[in-house]
Amino acid sequence: MPDESGTEPLTIRRAQHEVDTTILAQGGYWPPLANLARLFEECGELARALNQVYGRKLVKSGEMAVTAQEELGDILYVLLALANDLQIDAEAALAQALAKAHRRSLQAERGSE
Amino acid sequence: MPDESGTEPLTIRRAQHEVDTTILAQGGYWPPLANLARLFEECGELARALNQVYGRKLVKSGEMAVTAQEELGDILYVLLALANDLQIDAEAALAQALAKAHRRSLQAERGSE
Amino acid sequence: MPDESGTEPLTIRRAQHEVDTTILAQGGYWPPLANLARLFEECGELARALNQVYGRKLVKSGEMAVTAQEELGDILYVLLALANDLQIDAEAALAQALAKAHRRSLQAERGSE
Amino acid sequence: MPDESGTEPLTIRRAQHEVDTTILAQGGYWPPLANLARLFEECGELARALNQVYGRKLVKSGEMAVTAQEELGDILYVLLALANDLQIDAEAALAQALAKAHRRSLQAERGSE
Repeated sequence: MPDESGTEPLTIRRAQHEVDTTILAQGGYWPPLANLARLFEECGELARALNQVYGRKLVKSGEMAVTAQEELGDILYVLLALANDLQIDAEAALAQALAKAHRRSLQAERGSE
Repeated sequence: MPDESGTEPLTIRRAQHEVDTTILAQGGYWPPLANLARLFEECGELARALNQVYGRKLVKSGEMAVTAQEELGDILYVLLALANDLQIDAEAALAQALAKAHRRSLQAERGSE
Repeated sequence: MPDESGTEPLTIRRAQHEVDTTILAQGGYWPPLANLARLFEECGELARALNQVYGRKLVKSGEMAVTAQEELGDILYVLLALANDLQIDAEAALAQALAKAHRRSLQAERGSE
Repeated sequence: MPDESGTEPLTIRRAQHEVDTTILAQGGYWPPLANLARLFEECGELARALNQVYGRKLVKSGEMAVTAQEELGDILYVLLALANDLQIDAEAALAQALAKAHRRSLQAERGSE
C-alpha cells in the first residue's frame, strides 16, 4: 500500500494535496499576486542556476545540477500552491498543454510531407 | 489498465514522459536558456491573467479562470521540458520542496508553543 | 529650450516625471504587487521577442529588432512607474549598480595582474 | 544646472554609455539569452524584496526600501546592457512607451466624457 514517503509514483493530484497540507500548516495561502511574486522569485533563482551552467559564469556542473533541481522543485511547489488557491486542476491544465503540443506536432508532420 | 488518454490519475513521472514525446515529435529540445526564456514568457502570460482578476483591470472572472488554467498548464509543460533536458526527476525535486515546507511548518509549530 | 518631444536628451529624472504624468492621467498607480506582475508580463514579452531571434524560432531579424525595442521600452516604463510609487530615485539606484560594476571590474583587473 | 549630488542629471543616453564602459571592462557582453536570464534573476530579487514589504512576510520597511532600490538599480543596469547589445536606443524605446501611455489616457478622457 502506498505511503506518503513516496514509494508509489506521485500523481499530480496527490502533489496538489500535499502542497495544500503544508500551506495550511504554515498559516494558509498568500494572496494570488503575492504567490505570483514568489513564483518569479523562484524562477529567478533557476535563471541564476542555469546561467552559471549554460551562460557565461562556468561553475562546477555537479554542484549546479543539484541547485537547478532544488530551484525547479521550488517552482513546482509554488505553481501547485497557486493552482490550489485558484481552484485549478493542474493535471487538467497540463493535459490541455499536452494536447496543444500534440496538435502542433501533427501540423508539423503534415507541413513536412 | 491505464491508457494514455488519462483515465488513471497522471503521475509526475508519466507527465515528464508525455512532455518528452511531444517535444521529440516537434524536433527536439531547445537549448536550456531558450527554454528558460520560454518559461518566463509563459509566466508573464499568467501574470497578465492574474493581474486582470486580482490587480487593477477587472474582467469577467469566469473567462479569466479559464485563461489562468491554460497559462498554468503551459508553465507546467515548459517546466517539465526543462526538467527532462536537465535530467532532473521532477517528482524528486518536488519531494525536496515538500520536505522543506514540512520542516518550516514544524519549526512554526514549535515557535508558537 | 527643451520641450517634451525630446529635442534635449532625456534625463532619468525627467523620464520618471513623464511616466508619473501619464499614470496620473490614467487614474493613478496600481498596487506594487500588481505593478510587479505587469513588469513580469512585459519581461515575458521581451523573452518571447528574444527567443524568436536568438532561440530556436528564427524570424525576420528586422521585424524582431523593432519588437525587442518596443518591449524594452515597456519594461523601462513599468520599472520607472514602480520606482515612482516606491519613491525610489532611479538615477541613484542605477548609480549604485554602476558603482558595483566598477568595483567588480577593478577587482577583475587586480586579479589578472 | 547641478543637482544635490554635485553632478549633472544623468541622461538615459549617458547611462547606456556608462553601462557599456563597465561591461567592456569586465570582458564584454554576455549572449542575449544569458543577459535575459540575468534580467529575470534581478527581477526575481525585486519580487522577493516587494513581497517582504507588500506581501505576507512583513519586515522592517526602512531596511527593505533600501533593498528595493538596489534591486531596481540592478534591473535598470541589466536592461541597459541588453539595450546596448541589441543596439536599441533606450531613450527612443521609452519615448515610444510614453507615447502609447499618452494615447491611452486621451482615449480614457474621451471615454469618460
